[in-house]
Amino acid sequence: MDTIHFAVLGTGGIGRRTLEVSTEKETLEPVAACDRHGVAVDHDGLDVSELLDATEGNIAGDGTGDTEARTDGGTAVEGGVKQHGADAGIVASEQGERTADPIGAVIEESEHLDAVLLALPNLEHDFIPRIAGRFADAGYEGVLVDVLKRSRVIGMLDDRENQLVESGVTFVCGAGATPGFLTGAAALAAQSFVEVESVDIHWGVGLKSGYEDNRGTVREDIAHLDGYDMETAREMSAEEIEAVIDEHDGVIEFEDMEHADDVLLERAGVCDAEDVTVGGVLDVRSDEKPVTTTVTVTGRTFDGERATNTFELGDDTSMAANVNGPALGYLKAAVRHNRAGDYGVFGPAELMPGF
Amino acid sequence: MDTIHFAVLGTGGIGRRTLEVSTEKETLEPVAACDRHGVAVDHDGLDVSELLDATEGNIAGDGTGDTEARTDGGTAVEGGVKQHGADAGIVASEQGERTADPIGAVIEESEHLDAVLLALPNLEHDFIPRIAGRFADAGYEGVLVDVLKRSRVIGMLDDRENQLVESGVTFVCGAGATPGFLTGAAALAAQSFVEVESVDIHWGVGLKSGYEDNRGTVREDIAHLDGYDMETAREMSAEEIEAVIDEHDGVIEFEDMEHADDVLLERAGVCDAEDVTVGGVLDVRSDEKPVTTTVTVTGRTFDGERATNTFELGDDTSMAANVNGPALGYLKAAVRHNRAGDYGVFGPAELMPGF
Repeated sequence: MDTIHFAVLGTGGIGRRTLEVSTEKETLEPVAACDRHGVAVDHDGLDVSELLDATEGNIAGDGTGDTEARTDGGTAVEGGVKQHGADAGIVASEQGERTADPIGAVIEESEHLDAVLLALPNLEHDFIPRIAGRFADAGYEGVLVDVLKRSRVIGMLDDRENQLVESGVTFVCGAGATPGFLTGAAALAAQSFVEVESVDIHWGVGLKSGYEDNRGTVREDIAHLDGYDMETAREMSAEEIEAVIDEHDGVIEFEDMEHADDVLLERAGVCDAEDVTVGGVLDVRSDEKPVTTTVTVTGRTFDGERATNTFELGDDTSMAANVNGPALGYLKAAVRHNRAGDYGVFGPAELMPGF
Repeated sequence: MDTIHFAVLGTGGIGRRTLEVSTEKETLEPVAACDRHGVAVDHDGLDVSELLDATEGNIAGDGTGDTEARTDGGTAVEGGVKQHGADAGIVASEQGERTADPIGAVIEESEHLDAVLLALPNLEHDFIPRIAGRFADAGYEGVLVDVLKRSRVIGMLDDRENQLVESGVTFVCGAGATPGFLTGAAALAAQSFVEVESVDIHWGVGLKSGYEDNRGTVREDIAHLDGYDMETAREMSAEEIEAVIDEHDGVIEFEDMEHADDVLLERAGVCDAEDVTVGGVLDVRSDEKPVTTTVTVTGRTFDGERATNTFELGDDTSMAANVNGPALGYLKAAVRHNRAGDYGVFGPAELMPGF
């Protein structure tokens, strides 16, 4: 495959790690990145190392999309350059330029882009769909990938599908660990069956050293607890989040989560949304996974047997590894579709073998 | 997805079961099938049930591609219609017509076909590539899928890639259980890693009741034993095959098989061919799998960990279920690529998220 020139919107935990992973991928060339205050563009390829140093203090998805200082001296910060406020992040990089409209600045370069990763978790529901609309308005022909886990965003993207198709956009929604990686695994595991009875997705995340970089994800998870939703979780202060974590002694269990996995598997025709169960255990005080992340697919074979296929992630694969690898993997697959002229809104499972 | 009109070449075990599975898939409409002596075509959809009854005695891949009578009264034959010789198979169906060139007869209908499944195991190495060439010569624009497990066929298809691209063919090679399903699983499992150290594919097959339908597969497996190769295995008589099975008391273990899995994973950029190990245990005297089919992928994550992801097939999924489901799953994925104008020769792992 020819080199894929791509941009990253957002340089919090997910955005930065994606840039880092892309340096290990021959076919991926990051050429633009932005955060709330600045943009960096180099069509010959960004200096990722310099950019990562400059944005080290950024925290993704703290609820504002803004960059802010680390609140502690956690291990990941050691030796790094802490940045904060309006001088934080990309504007502190030699490659960065201050701008009032960083996303607009990336859109201006979009004719040179094959793909854009939207690493902007936990903002308003229609934030990503509106950004997709802006790219389409500008006539962008290429791939957009997000790593959200919210069912309703998919519907909002579907509402814009005509506009996206007209422009030539291939949008992959939810391409991170969950729902992306694990619904992909479920779609593949389903291939033994003519009818899928149940899909059970159960994840374990140990996030001690990655906690500061992944506050947005923790906040988004809290929204799935009884008594919380996206709106209440977004409005919680950092102290309130900490209080919830303390209440649970750092280990929070989730059952029957309303996650996009169910919608995405139904969309791919694998099973009904109601046959999908999602749960998990998050431990923010240990790097060990509290449980092994497992996808279990039970179904009926054409020859009348009932069986269960399973996919297990090794306990030493971090959440970050399971977000960034699949996000870039689906991005690559989407570029192939896009270059062939296959446009529209896709769930990750729709890019797998058909059911 | 719109209805996919497809044909099956070969009505042995794999071809017949694929027709059977397709009746449970809404978007798949089988409209043509052929064996050595006949062809059945109905653009409104074949009567699969009638065709299956008529071809019940067929045996796939007995080494000649011909149909022949069952040699015993095995359970699967009970109540079926045994067919043999030149009056066997499709010509015995009400939908069938005798023809000296059944594949040519399907090619004549190819402008009405979205996809063709080549269920013709164990013939000469260049048999499938030559058929692909015939479709391309006729200007076929659509999908071709085979379920072979032979590395060298892929090279032969690559040699014809220009011709296939010019015609508009999307060819997926090796889309059955192995290498198709299991290399797909390996490619997905690799997504946690930036470097894959090893892929271990270990399969178990219990084939008592399916033995008669799958002699071609058994023969192909024997070719992987020490002292045998494709040529010697193809020339073995049924008695010689039985003798090998008796020698092993019906349970044959395979280690370090030369299988297409390694080539296909290298082709998809997942790892070097030499990092892939394939082995398995075949038990033709029990329907229980002697070992659980497992794909194990070990790699290095971007954050410096080493871990192992695993994919396991439930022991009650038969070989047939794990061949037919993925073959049709990849066929569907390939039709999406083909309709968008993405032509050429693909291994199954290349249709997965990119590595």
